[in-house]
Amino acid sequence: MAVLPRLEDEELSAEAATVFADIRATRGSDFVNDFWRVLAHDPHLLKATWERLKAVMTPREGGLDPLTKELVYLAVSTANGCSYCVHSHTAAARAKGLTEAQHGEFLAVVAMAATTNALVEGLQVAPDEVFRRG
Amino acid sequence: MAVLPRLEDEELSAEAATVFADIRATRGSDFVNDFWRVLAHDPHLLKATWERLKAVMTPREGGLDPLTKELVYLAVSTANGCSYCVHSHTAAARAKGLTEAQHGEFLAVVAMAATTNALVEGLQVAPDEVFRRG
Amino acid sequence: MAVLPRLEDEELSAEAATVFADIRATRGSDFVNDFWRVLAHDPHLLKATWERLKAVMTPREGGLDPLTKELVYLAVSTANGCSYCVHSHTAAARAKGLTEAQHGEFLAVVAMAATTNALVEGLQVAPDEVFRRG
Amino acid sequence: MAVLPRLEDEELSAEAATVFADIRATRGSDFVNDFWRVLAHDPHLLKATWERLKAVMTPREGGLDPLTKELVYLAVSTANGCSYCVHSHTAAARAKGLTEAQHGEFLAVVAMAATTNALVEGLQVAPDEVFRRG
Amino acid sequence: MAVLPRLEDEELSAEAATVFADIRATRGSDFVNDFWRVLAHDPHLLKATWERLKAVMTPREGGLDPLTKELVYLAVSTANGCSYCVHSHTAAARAKGLTEAQHGEFLAVVAMAATTNALVEGLQVAPDEVFRRG
Amino acid sequence: MAVLPRLEDEELSAEAATVFADIRATRGSDFVNDFWRVLAHDPHLLKATWERLKAVMTPREGGLDPLTKELVYLAVSTANGCSYCVHSHTAAARAKGLTEAQHGEFLAVVAMAATTNALVEGLQVAPDEVFRRG
Repeated sequence: MAVLPRLEDEELSAEAATVFADIRATRGSDFVNDFWRVLAHDPHLLKATWERLKAVMTPREGGLDPLTKELVYLAVSTANGCSYCVHSHTAAARAKGLTEAQHGEFLAVVAMAATTNALVEGLQVAPDEVFRRG
Repeated sequence: MAVLPRLEDEELSAEAATVFADIRATRGSDFVNDFWRVLAHDPHLLKATWERLKAVMTPREGGLDPLTKELVYLAVSTANGCSYCVHSHTAAARAKGLTEAQHGEFLAVVAMAATTNALVEGLQVAPDEVFRRG
Repeated sequence: MAVLPRLEDEELSAEAATVFADIRATRGSDFVNDFWRVLAHDPHLLKATWERLKAVMTPREGGLDPLTKELVYLAVSTANGCSYCVHSHTAAARAKGLTEAQHGEFLAVVAMAATTNALVEGLQVAPDEVFRRG
Repeated sequence: MAVLPRLEDEELSAEAATVFADIRATRGSDFVNDFWRVLAHDPHLLKATWERLKAVMTPREGGLDPLTKELVYLAVSTANGCSYCVHSHTAAARAKGLTEAQHGEFLAVVAMAATTNALVEGLQVAPDEVFRRG
Repeated sequence: MAVLPRLEDEELSAEAATVFADIRATRGSDFVNDFWRVLAHDPHLLKATWERLKAVMTPREGGLDPLTKELVYLAVSTANGCSYCVHSHTAAARAKGLTEAQHGEFLAVVAMAATTNALVEGLQVAPDEVFRRG
Repeated sequence: MAVLPRLEDEELSAEAATVFADIRATRGSDFVNDFWRVLAHDPHLLKATWERLKAVMTPREGGLDPLTKELVYLAVSTANGCSYCVHSHTAAARAKGLTEAQHGEFLAVVAMAATTNALVEGLQVAPDEVFRRG
């Protein structure tokens, strides 16, 4: 179910095929998931999205570790209720070392944040002066 | 601005005062932020929320590190657009060691997730079979 | 702060003035809150919104009681993080008899729903067959 | 479809089995829905979630009636677009006496709240002074 | 999957049948999509929703063009993650002339908005004075 | 109010100053709004965001007209409840020719979408086969 069909490799435009080749090389895997296969209908948007994703997720000197970044990605996807994204980034987090116990801990933090977010919205508390820098 | 006024220490019920004492002891600081001061109108909800938060955020053997958990909390709060929560948990993340460069990296991941979440919702891509375990 | 200024009574168009008269008659109060004063820039949208609101909130034979309906309204507004709406509908719920203890109970339910909503999204559980009627 | 498989009774840990027994006793039914069966992968999170849910939903002296609380739960779940939650809490509301006509009235209120929430966000109206207590 | 079954033409109440006749006449098509068929369980809500929709989407002198309005509708539906709505309004936009290239451009704008929305929420930037009129 | 202070021109890094120069040249205005001034703490994220925004919003041959794109941007921002974004993109839409009457029409469409999105979520209607292409 999607508003556009997934494209097989032989249906890709030249520009999209180049992006797919880079996805495969970067990930060291032949598998390209359906998000990219549907997005490939617009090769320009595909390219811009992939290149930005690659830049953002590449580890930086002194930066956050890869699993932490993946969990931040997954947390946003969960809060946004994006089914595809939760499935794909849960798989990615596991591939980066998330244990089953850590997965449970992650879910507990996400649920806790949802809880206090809801209470704050229900009470409409304004940020304490000490938290403001701008 | 809130739908209920913040309570000063001398306005707390006995049950709320006990919770505030535990917040101070746990954090090693006399400061209690306004979320708890407004929530204190319902001492039972205050107690349940604080005790669950403390349990969730306490480090576990083999678990996620404290900064990662704080960033997951902040990521959910950002996706939910909870102004108070973004302010307070950004401060908490800094207190746990988040550098300014890492903060920028965090924001880049959050923005990237928002981007692909939006594309997935716009395209309505169904999760690949390989991502499903249930 | 708004993207359009609030209109004073003497700035209203004739169509908007008629709507304001009905708001006052229906509520039995001279006070018209700022939502309507800003919306009054588009008298047609003002009229359609007010008339639909009045129809929806009017008690029905065998229907939900007024406080329950107000709390449903407030629950949606809280989940959507609509600051103005949380303020105005909390006031409306109090006017309809919500006690401080019930307000705390309401917030506990809202927070609980946010919690399990988040867990469900994080786990991507599909609805049990028994829950489906369509 | 889920990111973890549902657990059958014979796959439960001892701690999870104890929670399931309490769910069954509290509800007076042998049926345990899939939310709990997937959550059971983390028995601690299962236990904390169930116990908090039970405490929140237990009727209180002078408190909100059970159907009102269920509708608040359902309203939040609808606003959050949580498919599983809408299915399960619609079923729960029916079990607590929601008639088909009241269900339609509930949906009308939810839709009305979504409407004015959207207008307020589009106009960015600030809360009237009279609505602020904090 | 739905919480209520879709109604066939022969199952409609008289009031709902009248609405369906108007949907068919207005659209010049015999096809009535499932949203209306499920909503038809509450003929009053069906009627109010359809009549408001028709009024809102009818072209106005000096107003927005039909495709722009459809894309605004689709943009909100995408941001809200409403699967049904994205499917139906993507189809409607195509019927109103959206080309495949424009669809890609639309998605790029939606994704861009999601990106800067997320950055603004993460940074909690207050609106510049120059943007405020109210 | 923000989690980081806005930067004045003389506080910008060289990379950020280059981006600001391009913003000014592209817009033909010396004014740079606070979103960019706060984002400038991370010059790399500033640059990536600005360059992508410029590419997305630049008119394309056979593409959507600038006002339509601005309204799509505004629609997403409204649905996401992003206060800053609603303020800034309402101003941008006016600068691109949105009349007051069209603004009202835009709000009516946004509110209508919120209404049917909510009804669909409350009823959990599955997309008709005819709407699916993927």
